[in-house]
Formats: sequence, C-alpha cells, structure tokens
Amino acid sequence: MNPVLVEVWRGNAIESEHAGAIAVVDAGGTVAHQVGDIERPIFPRSAVKALQALPLVESGAAERLQLNDDELAIACASHNGEPEHVRTAAGMLAKAGVDAEVLECGVHWPYQDAISRALATRGETPTALNNNCSGKHAGFVCLACGLMGWNDAGLDLRQYVKGYVRPEHPVMQEVTDALQSTTGFDLSRAPRGTDGCSIPTYGIPLRHLAHAFAKFGSGIGLRDGQARAARRLRQAVAASPFMVAGSNRFDTAVMQRLGERVFCKVGAEGVYCAALPERGLGVAIKSSDGNNARAAEVVMAAVIEALVRLDDEERAFMRRYSEVTLKNWNGIEVGSLRASQALRSSLRA
Amino acid sequence: MNPVLVEVWRGNAIESEHAGAIAVVDAGGTVAHQVGDIERPIFPRSAVKALQALPLVESGAAERLQLNDDELAIACASHNGEPEHVRTAAGMLAKAGVDAEVLECGVHWPYQDAISRALATRGETPTALNNNCSGKHAGFVCLACGLMGWNDAGLDLRQYVKGYVRPEHPVMQEVTDALQSTTGFDLSRAPRGTDGCSIPTYGIPLRHLAHAFAKFGSGIGLRDGQARAARRLRQAVAASPFMVAGSNRFDTAVMQRLGERVFCKVGAEGVYCAALPERGLGVAIKSSDGNNARAAEVVMAAVIEALVRLDDEERAFMRRYSEVTLKNWNGIEVGSLRASQALRSSLRA
Repeated sequence: MNPVLVEVWRGNAIESEHAGAIAVVDAGGTVAHQVGDIERPIFPRSAVKALQALPLVESGAAERLQLNDDELAIACASHNGEPEHVRTAAGMLAKAGVDAEVLECGVHWPYQDAISRALATRGETPTALNNNCSGKHAGFVCLACGLMGWNDAGLDLRQYVKGYVRPEHPVMQEVTDALQSTTGFDLSRAPRGTDGCSIPTYGIPLRHLAHAFAKFGSGIGLRDGQARAARRLRQAVAASPFMVAGSNRFDTAVMQRLGERVFCKVGAEGVYCAALPERGLGVAIKSSDGNNARAAEVVMAAVIEALVRLDDEERAFMRRYSEVTLKNWNGIEVGSLRASQALRSSLRA
Repeated sequence: MNPVLVEVWRGNAIESEHAGAIAVVDAGGTVAHQVGDIERPIFPRSAVKALQALPLVESGAAERLQLNDDELAIACASHNGEPEHVRTAAGMLAKAGVDAEVLECGVHWPYQDAISRALATRGETPTALNNNCSGKHAGFVCLACGLMGWNDAGLDLRQYVKGYVRPEHPVMQEVTDALQSTTGFDLSRAPRGTDGCSIPTYGIPLRHLAHAFAKFGSGIGLRDGQARAARRLRQAVAASPFMVAGSNRFDTAVMQRLGERVFCKVGAEGVYCAALPERGLGVAIKSSDGNNARAAEVVMAAVIEALVRLDDEERAFMRRYSEVTLKNWNGIEVGSLRASQALRSSLRA
C-alpha cells in the first residue's frame, strides 16, 4: 500500500485519507523525489493528452490547418464543455472540413453541476462537442487530415478517420508512438484498457511518466521535431489556459497565474502529470483510490508549492489548493484537506 | 492502513483501490466478522440518522402528530430532494404548525445530476426542503414540538426550535443521548465535528456502531420504549423505502427488494450502517478514503450477499451491486468494481 498523501480533517480528527504515489524526475531520468510505488504501471488517462497531441504539431498538420493557441490548448484539454470549448472544438473540425459527426468520443453532460444546469436551462442537451475530450478528438481528426495527405475532399477524410479510436488505426498508431517514445516504456507489453472516450490507455509507471514530462518541459531527450512540438503546445496552453480546463478548474487557475512556469494536466482516477520547465523536472502523481479533486489536485498543489520558485503571493495562492478549507451547506467551516507531513517531507528531501 | 475492500478494474489491470474497515456484531456485542481497524472512532455522519430519529418516536411526538410511514422514513433519510421528498418534509413541518423557515440544515442542489437539472429546467432553485437532510431536520422540529409540551402556538415553537442544531439545545441533547445509549460509547470524550447539515457528529468506533444496529434490528439491549421506536422506524422505512433515498439509490433499491430483512443507511465519507434483523446482526463500514458510491456501497452489497439468506434471484440482484460493470461514454464495457477477496473471505469466516 502507498502512504497517505492527503488528510481530510473534520473537527478535531482525521475523517478520511488518500494514499498515493508520486515521482519527480529530471530529463536525464534521475529521480529527484518519490513517494510510494513509482514502478507499478498505472493508467495515465487524460494526464498525457499533451504527449498524445505531439504528432498533431510535429506532423505539420497543426501549421497547415493554421490551428491557433486556443485550438492547440484544447487539443491537450479535459475541458468543462462550456460554450467557448464547444465553439473551439467545432472550429478545428471546420478547418479540417468536417463536423462533429466524425467524433467518436461519446456524449456526456458537463461534469460541473452549474455548467450542466446552465445547458439544461437553455433547453439544450449535450453533443460530442461538450465531451471533455472533444478537443483532443478534434486534434486527432486534424492529425488524420495530415496523415491522409491533405485531401481537400471532406468526404474522404470522413471515411479515413472512421474508427480512429481503435489502437490499429494510423492516427492512434501515431499517438501511441508518441507516448512510447516520450515515456520510453514498452507499450506492447503494458497493461491496456479503454479510456472514457474509447481510445486505448496503457499502464505506464509513474517514473516513466514523470521522465516524459521532464522531456516535454525541457525538450531534452526528444527528437528535434518533438521538442519543437512540445514547446509550441506549452506556449499555446500558457496563452490559453481556459481552453485546457475551464471555469473553477485547478489547471486553468494555476496556469493563468504561473504561465509557462508550470504545465499541469489532470487525468481521470486521480492522476496528475506536470512539467516544471524552470526546474527541469517532470511530475507524475497517482491517488491510489482514484480521487482527483481532493487528492491528486492537493498533491499537485503541494508539489508546485515546494518545487517551483514562487513569490509570497504566489505561494499563498498555491496554499489555498494544498490546504483547502471545507465548508458545509450553511457556509460553516467544518474541516480541511491537508497535504500530509510524509508528502511535504519527501518534497523537501 | 486498512486492507483493500474494493478493486476498480480497467482492461486487464487494477486501476484504483479502496481500503476500509468493517465490523459485523451481534446484539450481545460479539464481533462476528471484522476487517481492518474497528476500534478507531470514525464520524458516522448520516448513517446513524435512524438512531437519531428514535427520540421522535419514543417521546410520543410522532404518534401525537400522526406521522405516517413516509414521514418517519424521511426522518431517517438522506434523500435526493425529489418533489415527493420536498412535499413529505413540508407536510411534517405543517403538522408541527411551522414551515421551512425553521430549518437550519442549509440549502444545496440535489446531488444527482438529472434531478438537479430537472429542477433547473423547471426554472426553480432549491430550498432547505431539497437538502438531503430536510426530513431528519423536520423530525427534529417535530421532536421539539413534543419536548416543549405541545404548545399549539406556532410562534412559540419557532422560538423554541431556534438553534436546534447546536449540541446544547434540548432537541440535540435528546438526539445525542439516543446515540450514546444505543452505541454505548462515551460521546463526551469522542472526537467531534460539524456535519454537512450543521448538527454535531461524534467519532464512534465501527464496533460500537455495528452493535447499535444489531440492537436497532432486534430490540435486544434497548429499553422498551426505544425497542418499540426502533421497530416502528424499521417498519416505516420498509414500507416507504423511496423516502429514505430516492430514484437510482442503493438504499431504496435494496429495501424495495428485501423489505424488513435489511435496514441499511449510507453516510457521507464512505460510511454504511445496517441492521440484518433475521440474522440478529448489525453492520458498520468505513471506506478509508471516504468514497461512497464505489466503495462503501459495494462493500455493503457484498455483506448482504454473504450474510442474508437470499434466493437465487435476490443473490443475482445483489451481485449487480457487489460486481459493478463500468461503461464509458460510448456504452463500451471498460472495467468493473469488485469486492476484494480479502473482504469476501472475511465474510465467509
């Protein structure tokens, strides 16, 4: 079992606790900090969307289709399905000459209650464009546009992209190759599952994931085209952090505040990956129980607080995420989320 | 650390896991089954609402106000805030001569997305009556009605109940006494926190909670008035299981199916308590990480499956809750929730 990383306090006692593991690695592959088991493969889920978006840029497809910062950022996103996200994903598909019918990510109501209710109140129901992965999938379609050789006929692209979520499709092969080359982990022998949006997800150890994000943040250890693509994606997300998540979301708030000094991305089931370019470090976190909002996110905040050079105001800003006050329905303070001493000590070590 | 009770599978690997503890105890206090630490106090939260409702019946207030099955069931409920729940809680307050303004539980949107969206689509916003605890609080107000001596003037009751959520208020004193006498745990020295609805919650070991529910299910070890009150509440919940939770809820579904053979009640932060009257057993469960839907609920299902005499159809019904198929947004089966072997073995022992 992994150690406790986050404590959930109520009154004068710990009510619940979240165990997990974390790897902080440099671009040379040296482990700088670790807690728990960092060698066991874990499904990184959406935390590696930026790595999966590398072929879109490296292939030249993004440039050819003149994808802008918003569009590159949403290609790396798990977004809220807010109107701005829907418009941006739709715009990418339009540039490729197709529409939302080609998307194979499925449909779900936005995860955030208020956004979901707002949609319902407008008398709307969600489409695939509201799916938190619609930008990533629009990016896959744009990549397909490049792979099939720039055939301008929309009809042909519609044929070509059919089944793009399957592991053997040329699009997914490119995406998987990018994941394998950046993490350096043999995906052919890795555990495999199907992600929420139907693409394959591969089990990869935290150490390899953190190493990949150290490379992503520094360019070191990547081939030239990949390094340029990584830089372009990081710039795009830093320029359009709203697109990578949305209202009231950690990734958006942190990157709005810290810009290119942090690239962080949540994944389902309590995963977080990050690049800390100024420090030359990559980070990978897995909450054992799969909790995001009050486990992986709190850990990520504690990591940024400990490892990124922050001024006092920035530190106070991050502290609000690593020591979260919990209030009840009457607004009374009832408890808190706190990064455990074990976690804080390991980050100081 | 407690052992893993529930595994979350994706593809060919365990993606996440939920640790926890569980106590199964008879009315004499003998531990029949246990996993993990059952002596550490945990906050039972809403899992003990039925114990907290005992004074409402034992005091004679429920009879005097002619509370029916729906009303007694919702006094033990964490309900969905559906229209039927709102009407029922409002009806109890009307019988006491007051309205929702006396409720001190706070306001929240229903937890279930579809119910919350339906409310928004109707152009409504929630009131305290939609709060999942509104029935319990309406029960407190009805109890207050009894305690203050049946003064018919609504104005006086409104004065009297003011601050009823505070530990020192006569209403909360009665409620806390019931909790202490049934669990046999000294609450004056217990950890203390404030619950979501602002009443106090006390840290009580799982062993004591399970013992209390063995008494609640059998009447053994309770004073006569309490035993009668427990029986009345169990009958009411079995007759109106929709009121104790609502649409698409485990407690409602299980009690609709198994009637008085199981009384089970969820609490926030991964707590479950149950009485299995036919077996003379009480059950208390705590998921270490606080997860309800895919931890405590799966464990509760496995407990019922193992310990209640079920026919084949009933067993298949419960198995759908102890081995849950997980599908993604395209309806593709991607994984499952499974009660761990450690849990299943301990229940066979």
